[in-house]
Amino acid sequence: MRGVIMREPGDVRVEDRDMPTLLAPTDAIIKLAATCICGSDLWPYRGAEAVHERPMGHEYVGTVTEVGADVTSVKPGDFVVGSFMASDNTCEICAAGYQSRCVHGEFAGAGGAQAEYLRVPLADGTLVATPGVPDPKLIPSLLAASDVLGTGWFAAVAAEAGPGKTVAVVGDGAVGLLGILAARQLGAERIIAMSRHADRQALATAFGATDIVEERGDAGVARIKELTGGLGAHSVIEAVGTQEAMEQAIRSTRPGGHIGFVGVSHGVSIEGQGLFYSEVHLHGGPAPVRRFLPELIQLIWDGVIDPGVVFDLTLPLEDAAEGYRAMDERRATKVLLTV
Amino acid sequence: MRGVIMREPGDVRVEDRDMPTLLAPTDAIIKLAATCICGSDLWPYRGAEAVHERPMGHEYVGTVTEVGADVTSVKPGDFVVGSFMASDNTCEICAAGYQSRCVHGEFAGAGGAQAEYLRVPLADGTLVATPGVPDPKLIPSLLAASDVLGTGWFAAVAAEAGPGKTVAVVGDGAVGLLGILAARQLGAERIIAMSRHADRQALATAFGATDIVEERGDAGVARIKELTGGLGAHSVIEAVGTQEAMEQAIRSTRPGGHIGFVGVSHGVSIEGQGLFYSEVHLHGGPAPVRRFLPELIQLIWDGVIDPGVVFDLTLPLEDAAEGYRAMDERRATKVLLTV
Repeated sequence: MRGVIMREPGDVRVEDRDMPTLLAPTDAIIKLAATCICGSDLWPYRGAEAVHERPMGHEYVGTVTEVGADVTSVKPGDFVVGSFMASDNTCEICAAGYQSRCVHGEFAGAGGAQAEYLRVPLADGTLVATPGVPDPKLIPSLLAASDVLGTGWFAAVAAEAGPGKTVAVVGDGAVGLLGILAARQLGAERIIAMSRHADRQALATAFGATDIVEERGDAGVARIKELTGGLGAHSVIEAVGTQEAMEQAIRSTRPGGHIGFVGVSHGVSIEGQGLFYSEVHLHGGPAPVRRFLPELIQLIWDGVIDPGVVFDLTLPLEDAAEGYRAMDERRATKVLLTV
Repeated sequence: MRGVIMREPGDVRVEDRDMPTLLAPTDAIIKLAATCICGSDLWPYRGAEAVHERPMGHEYVGTVTEVGADVTSVKPGDFVVGSFMASDNTCEICAAGYQSRCVHGEFAGAGGAQAEYLRVPLADGTLVATPGVPDPKLIPSLLAASDVLGTGWFAAVAAEAGPGKTVAVVGDGAVGLLGILAARQLGAERIIAMSRHADRQALATAFGATDIVEERGDAGVARIKELTGGLGAHSVIEAVGTQEAMEQAIRSTRPGGHIGFVGVSHGVSIEGQGLFYSEVHLHGGPAPVRRFLPELIQLIWDGVIDPGVVFDLTLPLEDAAEGYRAMDERRATKVLLTV
């Protein structure tokens, strides 16, 4: 089969690779319908994270082709969506809603989901079958649920977005944009998108942002304060993972407010005394997407949300390298690869 | 009147000072019945915080002697307990329960509560009258409510201690010990006190600790994991404020668990990626004691809790310097000063 390999930073190839096989009785093999490139794939691409001959990709939707002897909840022929983190969905941590930290968890993208086929571990606890074979037009949205929507959703939940709340979103990448969609669905009253790019501002507004703030740093904080009676937002989503973004988030949140941070931290250090006196709630990490999948699939199936519009470039798998370049150069927000 | 001044680190004196007077129509003057020395007073005492000629003390109970023209909720003759942070208790931040960050807030200890009299700003929003003149034996407990109990209580609430939860407490000072009492009152199933001192272990047990862990660092984390099925505690109270204590807290909490941190951060820096993957909830800061005061006063009045036993040394105000020495040398956990 064909699959994406990142040989070194910046060097993405589509190569012939071995077909995945069942390794455990809890595994499933799926034939992908679509996959995509994640903002986090850019960290190794840009050399900010070590990489060598790594099979890439961890977002996937597709049809089950084979299941291990212990798998009972999905069967060959089912169309499924799964989280980027495999989970048993039965341990105490999963039961508490933190499937991304399942005691038996493993990275579902270990085999590389930017490929024709993928082995998914712990299939019963990781995959969720859709109500039927989806209309092709739903596939981008279902694919988004696998990570980027689930992550934006978790950020909004962690930030306690909800009725009566003002939510500020730091980061206008796909996760931040879908955090806006999530905050809107969760009933937030006002949603402030921090963005300087016209195309992303437009998508932010389409997803439910009520205000756009172009300023950053001190000026960005001042603008958020100005929009919130001097207090700061109730809820802030941090969807970048840099020091600047985390400081922006902490300083934009009112005392007693909540920050949901989902940008994978790179070189971030939080000064304790500043955090202490900010009196905010801070919660984040790898999103427990599996917690939200049944609800998200239903919302997509029913046409309530259309997160798939976040994909602004669609390429065949063979052109993955161009997809990486487009995201790296910010010519695309999020790239879907057809398989 | 007589009052405590810290001239320089380590140099505590009781001196003649001017009687406080009403400065604003929202002020009250109280004649103190008792005051005490806070663990946080040791930071400047030890030179970890700059200090010069500072009136000390921010914990107080006593009788109102005078009120400004706008004060309506307390009157001369009332016995009152107040928070160390003055608050209007009406602004949006107070209404959300964060009176320690009131938009009109100021430090109630600015005048120095280790004294015979104290001016309390924003009296209506800061002071709570007791149901009557208290029995002298209740005074230590009511005094504790002013900060150390209120802070331990906030830590337990921030850590979401409650039924079915295992709570670990980092720090065996007065705040940590009263965090144990709070966790017990909030219904925690199991409470693990981290302490190496026999006398504090005994008090921890009396307040409701079910387990004692003497190990620290890696060994301390391993022991907490061992006691919690390998997962870590649901709730962790951090009541120290050092780098070591914060790391202990983060590493002892299970994914999805909650940390309430109330030790005033000194030189703490939280590494972002470690926090990200820990997937904990982190919340803390100066305790909004006023939120809890009515409930805490009632619990003390009804004899349900007896936090005053945390005072293991009682001295007259004139002997304040010896009180500081006793706490600095860990001969005393918490010193009450009679006025």
